[in-house]
Amino acid sequence: MTLPSSEQLPQLGEFGLITRIADRVAVDGNVITGIGDDGAVTALTPGMQLVTSTDMLLEDIHFRRMWHDPYHLGRKSLAVSISDIAAMGAIPRWALLSLALPVGLSLDFVDRFMDGFLTLAGEHRVSLIGGDTCASKSGLVISVTIMGEQYPETIIRRTGAVAGDDIWVTGTLGDAALALQVVEKGGDTPLASRLLDPTPRVSAALVLAESGYATALIDVSDGILADFGHIAEQSHVGGQLFVEELPLSGSLRTEAAIMAVNPRQLALSGGEDYELCFTAHRVNREKIRENMKKCGVEVTRIGIVTPPTGIIALNSDGSRFSCLAAGFNHF
Amino acid sequence: MTLPSSEQLPQLGEFGLITRIADRVAVDGNVITGIGDDGAVTALTPGMQLVTSTDMLLEDIHFRRMWHDPYHLGRKSLAVSISDIAAMGAIPRWALLSLALPVGLSLDFVDRFMDGFLTLAGEHRVSLIGGDTCASKSGLVISVTIMGEQYPETIIRRTGAVAGDDIWVTGTLGDAALALQVVEKGGDTPLASRLLDPTPRVSAALVLAESGYATALIDVSDGILADFGHIAEQSHVGGQLFVEELPLSGSLRTEAAIMAVNPRQLALSGGEDYELCFTAHRVNREKIRENMKKCGVEVTRIGIVTPPTGIIALNSDGSRFSCLAAGFNHF
Repeated sequence: MTLPSSEQLPQLGEFGLITRIADRVAVDGNVITGIGDDGAVTALTPGMQLVTSTDMLLEDIHFRRMWHDPYHLGRKSLAVSISDIAAMGAIPRWALLSLALPVGLSLDFVDRFMDGFLTLAGEHRVSLIGGDTCASKSGLVISVTIMGEQYPETIIRRTGAVAGDDIWVTGTLGDAALALQVVEKGGDTPLASRLLDPTPRVSAALVLAESGYATALIDVSDGILADFGHIAEQSHVGGQLFVEELPLSGSLRTEAAIMAVNPRQLALSGGEDYELCFTAHRVNREKIRENMKKCGVEVTRIGIVTPPTGIIALNSDGSRFSCLAAGFNHF
Repeated sequence: MTLPSSEQLPQLGEFGLITRIADRVAVDGNVITGIGDDGAVTALTPGMQLVTSTDMLLEDIHFRRMWHDPYHLGRKSLAVSISDIAAMGAIPRWALLSLALPVGLSLDFVDRFMDGFLTLAGEHRVSLIGGDTCASKSGLVISVTIMGEQYPETIIRRTGAVAGDDIWVTGTLGDAALALQVVEKGGDTPLASRLLDPTPRVSAALVLAESGYATALIDVSDGILADFGHIAEQSHVGGQLFVEELPLSGSLRTEAAIMAVNPRQLALSGGEDYELCFTAHRVNREKIRENMKKCGVEVTRIGIVTPPTGIIALNSDGSRFSCLAAGFNHF
């Protein structure tokens, strides 16, 4: 590892940095022209459609350099975008990365950020094919565009949920929200990796897409209440969420008890878990459990789709659970 | 026009803003799913490959709100990306737009920015299919990703220039660089539109691509010296640029004389003209002139590709022209 130096980036220059990054990129067979021309050229698998998404991450809005190390920041920058492609049931293929680098940022920081970004890219066979770099007079800005592909009939949208469908979620909820509360105060928690290094549920999403069981699909980035809300709005349905069925990790239960916060509130309204929320007809219940088991992903039935009469969170006795917040408004 | 109000954006919220933008977007036939899902879905023309590019524009780095009105900033944000697709000889199709909005920015600013963005998009039949919005604790950040398409054999890269080829450029050079000097000092100039509202040379690029005459192509964003330099590097060639042949506008000559700057220095090293620089075999000289005339674009032969012995700028007597700067280093 090289020592951080604020002198290195200005000496390297914009094109030096681009070459430094390009030299590390593994180029896949379906990349015709990668980094280094006015545009990148790629070939879609015949018969597939293009699925694209973009995310911007700003320092002190989405992350803090104080608690987000560059390697994991690099991973997460790509992970949140890959998660969007997974949430369409599509196969992630190519990424574009733009970085606005604060004056004085060390080249070592950029190198370790790229380590994380390219490692996650490699894990998902995503090729970095282009981007943009410039200086920032304030904080670090990261913009990632991800492109994926899928056969038209296999893509899963937010629009297909039907009253009577089950509502499912993968993994556990609320972990990232609790971790955020801890790391923002300078603390540490075994749940930190859920916040700092989220796992996009690509294989589970693809199994689901290929099975045809999911009627609607979204990734949980704003909290299950807000994200199922997007499905409800776009499918013109409502929903009942069974609060006591929400999957909570052991660590979340333990830490929430210590902090005297209600883990179910975190599970409902806390963002950044990057799990999958989907709906499916009840006849496919067992097949869904089997399929998810095969790809090593826990899956929990957490509610039922209703006619469009709003979304309510219910306790097991049928009384309404009172939610404190629903998602996050950036403005 | 509504009066600016810093209260409107927080009331509207992130999803309100997205809906407000989505409601204005004209959706094209090849957009299967536009704004509003985890990813956008589009269909490429069968047989074509995907061409992508991304640009990030930061306040006080790439533009100042003091002299860049929101409408033209919106146009330019997309124009620079469309120019990259043109520089591949590809057809621009779909765009993603991410905005980080400073606290207190008026909704009116965003509306007028979108007016400009969507007007230019309409002029080029580009569909806005997605993006991201968030708050910024410092300046406005704009990130645009553009996707285009083209048949593989029609795409033009930076790599095909051959010693003996002519070097060509469209339009005039140096205008944007002079305009930058003027507007940065708070002045006005007839050349301001070259800086604030550049015209991506899409139709000229497509005519060139379909003709098959251009051996290499790039858009002039960093100055002809730097940008031909990219062709030279990637084609493993050198070049002689005939300084007295560089196309200068009447306004540039007049204004440069008043300001006592050498317009040829601006033409060589000034960025942001977004003209096309290309190389072509000399047998195609007349056909190129005819083709460009048909699409109403001036074209000038400004040099000759040489073996890889560097790039030199020559006066008409064969003596070397001394360049003061070559392009812009962001760091």
